[in-house]
Amino acid sequence: MEKLKGALVFAQSGGPTSVINASDAGVFIEGLKSSKITAVYGAAHGIRGILNEEFYDIGKEDKKELLRLKYTPSSALGSVRYKLKDASKDETDYKRLLEVFKKYNVRYFFYNGGNDSMDTCNKISKYMAKSGYAINVIGVPKTIDNDLYGTDHCPGFASAAKYIATSIMEINLDAKVYDSPMVCIVEAMGRNAGWLTASAALANEKGLGADLIYLPETDFDVKKFVSDVEKVMKKNNNKCIACVSEGIHDKKGKLISEVLGEAGARDSFGHAQLGGVAASVADISKQKFGVKTRAVEVSLMQRCAAHCASKTDIEETFNAGRMAVKAAVSGVTDKMVCYKVRKDFDKKYVCEYELLPLELAANTERTVPKSWITKNGTGISKQFVKYALPLIEGETELTKEDGLPRFAKLKKVRVSK
Amino acid sequence: MEKLKGALVFAQSGGPTSVINASDAGVFIEGLKSSKITAVYGAAHGIRGILNEEFYDIGKEDKKELLRLKYTPSSALGSVRYKLKDASKDETDYKRLLEVFKKYNVRYFFYNGGNDSMDTCNKISKYMAKSGYAINVIGVPKTIDNDLYGTDHCPGFASAAKYIATSIMEINLDAKVYDSPMVCIVEAMGRNAGWLTASAALANEKGLGADLIYLPETDFDVKKFVSDVEKVMKKNNNKCIACVSEGIHDKKGKLISEVLGEAGARDSFGHAQLGGVAASVADISKQKFGVKTRAVEVSLMQRCAAHCASKTDIEETFNAGRMAVKAAVSGVTDKMVCYKVRKDFDKKYVCEYELLPLELAANTERTVPKSWITKNGTGISKQFVKYALPLIEGETELTKEDGLPRFAKLKKVRVSK
Repeated sequence: MEKLKGALVFAQSGGPTSVINASDAGVFIEGLKSSKITAVYGAAHGIRGILNEEFYDIGKEDKKELLRLKYTPSSALGSVRYKLKDASKDETDYKRLLEVFKKYNVRYFFYNGGNDSMDTCNKISKYMAKSGYAINVIGVPKTIDNDLYGTDHCPGFASAAKYIATSIMEINLDAKVYDSPMVCIVEAMGRNAGWLTASAALANEKGLGADLIYLPETDFDVKKFVSDVEKVMKKNNNKCIACVSEGIHDKKGKLISEVLGEAGARDSFGHAQLGGVAASVADISKQKFGVKTRAVEVSLMQRCAAHCASKTDIEETFNAGRMAVKAAVSGVTDKMVCYKVRKDFDKKYVCEYELLPLELAANTERTVPKSWITKNGTGISKQFVKYALPLIEGETELTKEDGLPRFAKLKKVRVSK
Repeated sequence: MEKLKGALVFAQSGGPTSVINASDAGVFIEGLKSSKITAVYGAAHGIRGILNEEFYDIGKEDKKELLRLKYTPSSALGSVRYKLKDASKDETDYKRLLEVFKKYNVRYFFYNGGNDSMDTCNKISKYMAKSGYAINVIGVPKTIDNDLYGTDHCPGFASAAKYIATSIMEINLDAKVYDSPMVCIVEAMGRNAGWLTASAALANEKGLGADLIYLPETDFDVKKFVSDVEKVMKKNNNKCIACVSEGIHDKKGKLISEVLGEAGARDSFGHAQLGGVAASVADISKQKFGVKTRAVEVSLMQRCAAHCASKTDIEETFNAGRMAVKAAVSGVTDKMVCYKVRKDFDKKYVCEYELLPLELAANTERTVPKSWITKNGTGISKQFVKYALPLIEGETELTKEDGLPRFAKLKKVRVSK
């Protein structure tokens, strides 16, 4: 494809992460540098912002604040959960997108998100190509779930893993403080992929982890769980810390949160709305053992605790945004940025950036390899630790003011319609 | 009282905090320096460790690790919830304590805890005095609840407040990320005192706080709450973040968690076991407004997130431990260390250490002044911000290894009985 001159649009979709705005920083800062790019726009609330022509003029922002985005959680532009219909069934949205792209001469489009968003990005890319509208479309990955296909790991995962492992170490010390029996259940996010829950194993490396770890990659059996807890309590002075994924399910595939609790609502992608499984599982422990139990959800904090983000994750996410722009202005389209990890001559961790066809990235979930889960289904192997430990290295450079984070403040100047 | 030579015993009681071990560090390091002190012992699990003669020989610990205690959450010695009976009704425990103190020639006793622990400390002090056993007893305060009488603030409060304010800033950014309506309820600890919940107001100072803040110092009315949320949603693009204390109650004094949820169990002090009120209150919002709701409990993390502790809190807690020992070896007894705050000639915050009779500190709860709560009962005044902001200043010097906290590792060498 020829090297186009035109506007850049960046939009974000899906659940935010601690470092998703590092992608913004990368895309914006690189975009503002390029002579091919005539204007840098941020779309408000993903696709919906494009459909509604709600753009922020990033050229009007302070460079310092754009750099602060690296350390600012959540999505600075606003996110959305909006599923595009198949163009073969309903072209309405695609036609509108094309109209808007033409109106603003958008020739560079970057979509930031997880599986569903890469699917959206792929659909848009294919439609624009079919329509003969010259535009370079690149997917910028993000998801704490770490479940995108074709990349060694996903931007945002490591910071969530670091927060979870740190919190579990702290919770371990706290929960074991009394000399009385105690069962503590910590719940991490992850519908089908247990990467976040597996991060508890990083805390185990420090001797302050979870005795039992249950991922959605295996079936969860309530009876076996009770027996697992019993064994741990016998061994560990009547104390047990377990980490469960929100997505744990029985052998029929039914979510434990549904089996034990109320059937949940579903989001606009048809996924069940999860959460609360820790409380249910803690309740079982209370009933069976009559001991003090604690159910701890690391909840939204796991995806927004920027104060505990991984420097490695921040810098990689920032670079992924920059790479996306560099690739696009050099003529690349219909790709997603991905990470490849290799060891250098010192056997040190090196992350390289590659490009993967969008259709490969879209809608393929990458789960924790079964071989990384111990045979009894309650532990995580050293392979995971070897994989994940380099990713959580380094601390955020987030500035503090009055002892609190000083997050980026954008002017968000609207582009006139 | 004469200046005694003898052993020092330090014990910890009640719920731990992020910085409670900074008290250990202060007491231990100062104790090991004193020529009056023949041995420094840590009792396992508070009073129970003394009754059972379970002592750790702190002299055998590595000084570096003792210093690391400043940055290590939870209680390194183990805590306990154990209520001493009135000596006038049952002397058994007191007699045993006296026996153990005599056996190990304990002449310096330090008890670390909140209201209930200061009561225990006071009872022991009075009993030993009555028995004619020469021992210097000093209470070392700690409680995230900040509800101890006679001190400007309590060791542990500021770090919890810093974590809560930081998390609320991050949750604020995360929860408002979509363009759809949303109610997010954040629950903080605090049975009768709303200091922790009030910390949300520190996040408000940064423009990323809670729209509504409900303390247990006022009555909570469910109908008014619904109307409060409705008003905020109208004003704030259909979004509302509320912070509630676990201890909010109706005008009859019945806990909202009991009114709306199941009646809870009670702990060994007869206090109701709280928690889960966020979920109940979020549920009401869902029923009334039919919008997406989130219930976030900052749970154990608020009292153990040492990675986000306040340096001011750490240093003051450390100094309080040291001051306790200095006072005791100079002959002071039957007192609790407390903080007095003044402004220096530069109008800067200065914390000074004073001593308060134990009986004054024991069992008197200090709540948030009513005048610091806005008239509509949903906000916190600037006076609170002025009070709390200096306390959360500065970051922990916690060392990281592999991107995770390197907490203190004690040898815990048992003293032979």
